Amino acid sequence: MKTTIKYPPISDLHVTRYSKILSTGSYLPDNIVTNEDIIKRYNLIATDRAVRYSIGISERRWENKNLDVSDCVALAAKQCLERANISIEQVDRIIYSKLLGDYNVPATAIGMLKKLNAKNGIPAFDLTAACSGFIHAMDMAIRYIDSGDDYVLILGGGLTSWALANDFNKIDTRTVFLMGDGIAAMLLGVSKEKHFLSSYIQTDNTHYEVGYMPLGLSLLNSKESLSSDMFGMKIDNGRILNENAIESAVVTVNRLLESSKLTIDDIDFVATSDQTTQLWEGQLKALNIPLEKSVSLFHKQGNTASAMSALNLDELINSGRLKRGMTVLMMAHGAGASGGGVIFKY
Amino acid sequence: MKTTIKYPPISDLHVTRYSKILSTGSYLPDNIVTNEDIIKRYNLIATDRAVRYSIGISERRWENKNLDVSDCVALAAKQCLERANISIEQVDRIIYSKLLGDYNVPATAIGMLKKLNAKNGIPAFDLTAACSGFIHAMDMAIRYIDSGDDYVLILGGGLTSWALANDFNKIDTRTVFLMGDGIAAMLLGVSKEKHFLSSYIQTDNTHYEVGYMPLGLSLLNSKESLSSDMFGMKIDNGRILNENAIESAVVTVNRLLESSKLTIDDIDFVATSDQTTQLWEGQLKALNIPLEKSVSLFHKQGNTASAMSALNLDELINSGRLKRGMTVLMMAHGAGASGGGVIFKY
Repeated sequence: MKTTIKYPPISDLHVTRYSKILSTGSYLPDNIVTNEDIIKRYNLIATDRAVRYSIGISERRWENKNLDVSDCVALAAKQCLERANISIEQVDRIIYSKLLGDYNVPATAIGMLKKLNAKNGIPAFDLTAACSGFIHAMDMAIRYIDSGDDYVLILGGGLTSWALANDFNKIDTRTVFLMGDGIAAMLLGVSKEKHFLSSYIQTDNTHYEVGYMPLGLSLLNSKESLSSDMFGMKIDNGRILNENAIESAVVTVNRLLESSKLTIDDIDFVATSDQTTQLWEGQLKALNIPLEKSVSLFHKQGNTASAMSALNLDELINSGRLKRGMTVLMMAHGAGASGGGVIFKY
Repeated sequence: MKTTIKYPPISDLHVTRYSKILSTGSYLPDNIVTNEDIIKRYNLIATDRAVRYSIGISERRWENKNLDVSDCVALAAKQCLERANISIEQVDRIIYSKLLGDYNVPATAIGMLKKLNAKNGIPAFDLTAACSGFIHAMDMAIRYIDSGDDYVLILGGGLTSWALANDFNKIDTRTVFLMGDGIAAMLLGVSKEKHFLSSYIQTDNTHYEVGYMPLGLSLLNSKESLSSDMFGMKIDNGRILNENAIESAVVTVNRLLESSKLTIDDIDFVATSDQTTQLWEGQLKALNIPLEKSVSLFHKQGNTASAMSALNLDELINSGRLKRGMTVLMMAHGAGASGGGVIFKY
């Protein structure tokens, strides 16, 4: 089923002050949870083999509740800043693409500054754009650097396991295996050369309620009784989400290539959101990109929300496959629906 | 008590493509709730006179649960767009500074597009920066227009009354009179002349937990039982928040004037966040600005979160006091703490 939404045309980036990625970082909890662990814990009628066959996941990381989200975000930020040899006090702006923060208000990005013991009153806020949030944050960082910032630190992802671990009544067997905890970080800085060739974001409001996390006013309106499972993702129709993700990826990539004046063969590596192994493969297949030009950590990390695409990029960098000067297509798609991407020379 | 945070210096705006405010708009529910209504409803030991004396409020608007937040945001957007004679399909980007959305994920900004029946897949996301969120969104819109957007629609505020109205066990008597429902909208467009002279945002992480809305992972961690009052603001020490708001306002305004090369006498009007009548007066007094150069709707609308400063600006425009060409200082401060402002020629 094709969407009825009209995807907007791409605008070329009017940027006079260029950005580049200085470093990436991550925080992943030590605690590994296997499919078997989940099956036992919740007494489910499922097998590890069936779970791996249907969505591709073997294990994921679940934080053991010793750390707040802001602690985890601070650890990812710390690694990222250390890799670039930049102190938090040098950073001009913080953007955290959150899933669930410490609180609804204030921004968990400020909590992160507290955990890092930052002495400066650095501008910091959270943004909500589900799994595509890291791309929104990158798109924003490019524009902030264009108009004056020297260093922008962006973060994405969150902890979703707490809701599962919090003695809740009903386990949603459609999503219990899907989610993992993880945070990705990226530091962008000013550059004399042009690295970012194009950026594109779109939404599809016809898919507003296909996947959602209830924790909002909708709960009060419906007079539902409050329970822990409102902290988890509800996905009523995964097939529609997947089809929409692939359709969105094709549109996004065509627009990005058009604006970058590149063809798909010019792309050295792809980092994308991989909500399942099948969706990762499906996107690449629809784009005629060999799997070797990409990586998916879904099988061992699960869906880490807006961190996914950035954790995959971090993996490409750390494994030594992605080298400076290579051309990268980074994209993401998520609930809302909201999707987008960037093409950059690393 | 002065904060120990070091407020960052201001950077001049490196903007080559200028922005201007094309129009503003608002949505306020019809339903007026007086202090007496609240006293009766919750059987409180208080008087209208004492409430008015202590915080300055007489009444506020509470949505009667017939509309979702996204409906209310759509109504504010509609008024704003109609005033500028621009259709939603012409808008390049939507930013909603939310308090509580329809859901935690996806962005309520996308829900708004659905309610407006938008046919285009316009980029849209929510941001979280408490009561200062509208300033963050304006700061962002200026940069998006600089780098290519023609029209950016920003929205702020939300519904807080639902939590109060939802049969909850414990009424927080410190905050029950404070909050009101309301949404503000602003459309920014590209301009040949420079309107925005300066923009400044800062945070104070030493005040991270002075005022907060629990609805986040902190709830699960603390093993608190879930209840409706987690949808409301918790303010443990209003005095500290007020002192911090005034300190932040003075720093923000000094930085903005410095970057704009103006003095306080050059400012024709001030639109600020007014969490109480006393805080509105306190900010202006500390800045040596006569009350006549500003307006506060707190007495009849209460704290509408990030909508406050923008609703006050909308009032200055609609009352005919603020005319094109005049110089405006717009600022806001909120939980987190997070504050900032802009100076612009309207």
